[in-house]
Amino acid sequence: MTLENMTFDAVTFDRMWSAIEPIGREASTGGYRRFAWTRVDATLREWFAGEATARGLDLTTDRAGNQWAWWGDPDAAVAAGRPGVVIGSHLDSVPDGGAFDGPLGVVSALAVVDALRAKGFEPSRPIAVANFVDEEGARFGIACAGSRVITGRLDADKARGLRDADGVTMAEAMTAAGHATEDVGPDDEALRRVGTFVELHIEQGRGLIDLRRSVAVASSSWPHGRWRIDLEGEANHAGTTRLEDRHDPMIALATTVLAARAAASEHGCVATVGKVRVQPNGVNAIPSQVTAWLDTRGPGEAGVRAVVEAVGRQSGAIAVEESWTPETAFDAGLAQHLSELLDDAPILATGAGHDAGVLAAAGLSTAMLFVRNPTGISHSPAEFAEREDCHRGVEALTRVTEELAR
Amino acid sequence: MTLENMTFDAVTFDRMWSAIEPIGREASTGGYRRFAWTRVDATLREWFAGEATARGLDLTTDRAGNQWAWWGDPDAAVAAGRPGVVIGSHLDSVPDGGAFDGPLGVVSALAVVDALRAKGFEPSRPIAVANFVDEEGARFGIACAGSRVITGRLDADKARGLRDADGVTMAEAMTAAGHATEDVGPDDEALRRVGTFVELHIEQGRGLIDLRRSVAVASSSWPHGRWRIDLEGEANHAGTTRLEDRHDPMIALATTVLAARAAASEHGCVATVGKVRVQPNGVNAIPSQVTAWLDTRGPGEAGVRAVVEAVGRQSGAIAVEESWTPETAFDAGLAQHLSELLDDAPILATGAGHDAGVLAAAGLSTAMLFVRNPTGISHSPAEFAEREDCHRGVEALTRVTEELAR
Repeated sequence: MTLENMTFDAVTFDRMWSAIEPIGREASTGGYRRFAWTRVDATLREWFAGEATARGLDLTTDRAGNQWAWWGDPDAAVAAGRPGVVIGSHLDSVPDGGAFDGPLGVVSALAVVDALRAKGFEPSRPIAVANFVDEEGARFGIACAGSRVITGRLDADKARGLRDADGVTMAEAMTAAGHATEDVGPDDEALRRVGTFVELHIEQGRGLIDLRRSVAVASSSWPHGRWRIDLEGEANHAGTTRLEDRHDPMIALATTVLAARAAASEHGCVATVGKVRVQPNGVNAIPSQVTAWLDTRGPGEAGVRAVVEAVGRQSGAIAVEESWTPETAFDAGLAQHLSELLDDAPILATGAGHDAGVLAAAGLSTAMLFVRNPTGISHSPAEFAEREDCHRGVEALTRVTEELAR
Repeated sequence: MTLENMTFDAVTFDRMWSAIEPIGREASTGGYRRFAWTRVDATLREWFAGEATARGLDLTTDRAGNQWAWWGDPDAAVAAGRPGVVIGSHLDSVPDGGAFDGPLGVVSALAVVDALRAKGFEPSRPIAVANFVDEEGARFGIACAGSRVITGRLDADKARGLRDADGVTMAEAMTAAGHATEDVGPDDEALRRVGTFVELHIEQGRGLIDLRRSVAVASSSWPHGRWRIDLEGEANHAGTTRLEDRHDPMIALATTVLAARAAASEHGCVATVGKVRVQPNGVNAIPSQVTAWLDTRGPGEAGVRAVVEAVGRQSGAIAVEESWTPETAFDAGLAQHLSELLDDAPILATGAGHDAGVLAAAGLSTAMLFVRNPTGISHSPAEFAEREDCHRGVEALTRVTEELAR
């Protein structure tokens, strides 16, 4: 595959990329703050709807607010026993995230529709481009909320009651964004339309660099979870309280952070304390409480559980599980088939969670394509992919979609 | 001193206390959020002005925004070589602070005016009640900003340019509160009116508990300072970044917190990391930067400096000094005199900083009275003083003021 023989319109891809580039970008960091059910999110959803309409796709929104843009009649296809091929990803971001994690998959999927039409392809199954809502869980704390709700893996009432840092519930945020909340819940109608889901995503590690390849196929996602650890203390004056009289939860935070690193190393996992809340967070007051969020992942569940158990024990507090995702194997036969289709693309495991993993866990046939990340950095303003690799990703996803919808 | 022979109107004290009790109280914590130049602060300043007016006191505001309510003509007194006796404290709070730190001194001072008038006292020096602005530095990071500005210990341009967490400058906040900012700076006119300043304050330690006394006199304030430590890292994905590839500033925070505790213990000081800022503070992202604020105090400057030096060395970062206050001895002869006047009240040192310390460092004759704190807890919603001890504080401050203005 070279740029010379690309079969899609790179100019249109680049135009779409430029259109969303400024949306939700924080000037002070260069990172993105695209959080679910905010004004920025609404702007991205409107952009998606506009791109769907411009292509004559039928836009539907499911019971969690995920957007689906259909080329062809998905229900007729279900009735005929040939459900659709869905490609896409998400448009939201972590706080100060990069431009590629999510949007690359959505923009690439729209470009695939253009490429298939340009070559006169007549699909025998309908094709949809999907934009999953709230994949990162940055605002309400639970990742892949959109796919979890429609598959029933996140209870509807629990989802509606999740609160952001300002105390706003997800139900209130959805209502403010004009989305009805009374129907939130499992959506079999949306799911049965999905014969196969393929999510293209920037790689979030360094696997493709050493392999000198542009595109890989995913084998599985590591088991992973998030835990909240509330470290209780006693607020007091920083100048007048003797060291021996202190109950300082910042000391417990330090112990917790170091315990997480040591246990992860011991068990061959990764563990991260990336979010902390200090109360009252005053320069001259011993904190009354510090809350730490622990993200732990690894190749096996036993190792991950052992890390969390060790951290809880050493922190002297209870690690409350906020989410848990078991190891998710994507459809192995499909992965092998796509690898062969893509000139023996490497097949890689990943430590990241994705909507594709949630759908796979719910029994759908799913696959993922990864596009090379030349620094390995993700969830950062420094996240980057070469434009040429992005174009090769579209080319690969086009081949895959054509094969699946033939 | 017993309640039976109190010479002041406890009902009026209690009424004032009840009037300000709800202002700026956070329902979720029970603590106070009374930050300089906010709406809450304006409400407290209006309350103070109203109390001054109700007593026929002349209200003036100096070039930093501190409020002075005069009984008698301060400038005539200066001309006569008999400058005034000033009593008071501050009304602002740390985040989720207690009800007493600050307001007890202001309310008590107003009650002293009532008590002196009730007994027909005719002062030979004018008496003022002062409300110093922004004592805690909770919003703009520099404690005792009001007294530091008028004594020239905080440069006017630096003060105007200080920014709060939302990026609002002190100048903008003052302007929004209706206070002119072009005159901010040293205010010799305000200072020369002060013959003696006496600040009554809740004790912020446990000294009076063991001594079984209600009121103490201050000897000195420990040297203390605040430092900012920026711990740099590299934002990256929490699931896909190998431990050995991480530059995680949360690990450096843990090291810093533990180094501070160990160094403080070694050097006989106290050190506190009470405020932390994590960027981007996402559950599934290794932080790009963690900033820690270090508050260090102790009986001698060499020890405090040694703590900060050790913390900087072990954190691998530079500790940037944001404020420094040398040891401040209050007027020793005055303290001895007041102790004798108050039935040999104990004379105690303190680890806390106060406007009285700033004025003492500027060469003014100052003293402090401490009121017993039965838990020793301060800078916390749990801060507490028995009402009877508060009344005894007013009684003590009345005696002191009468003596000084006789």
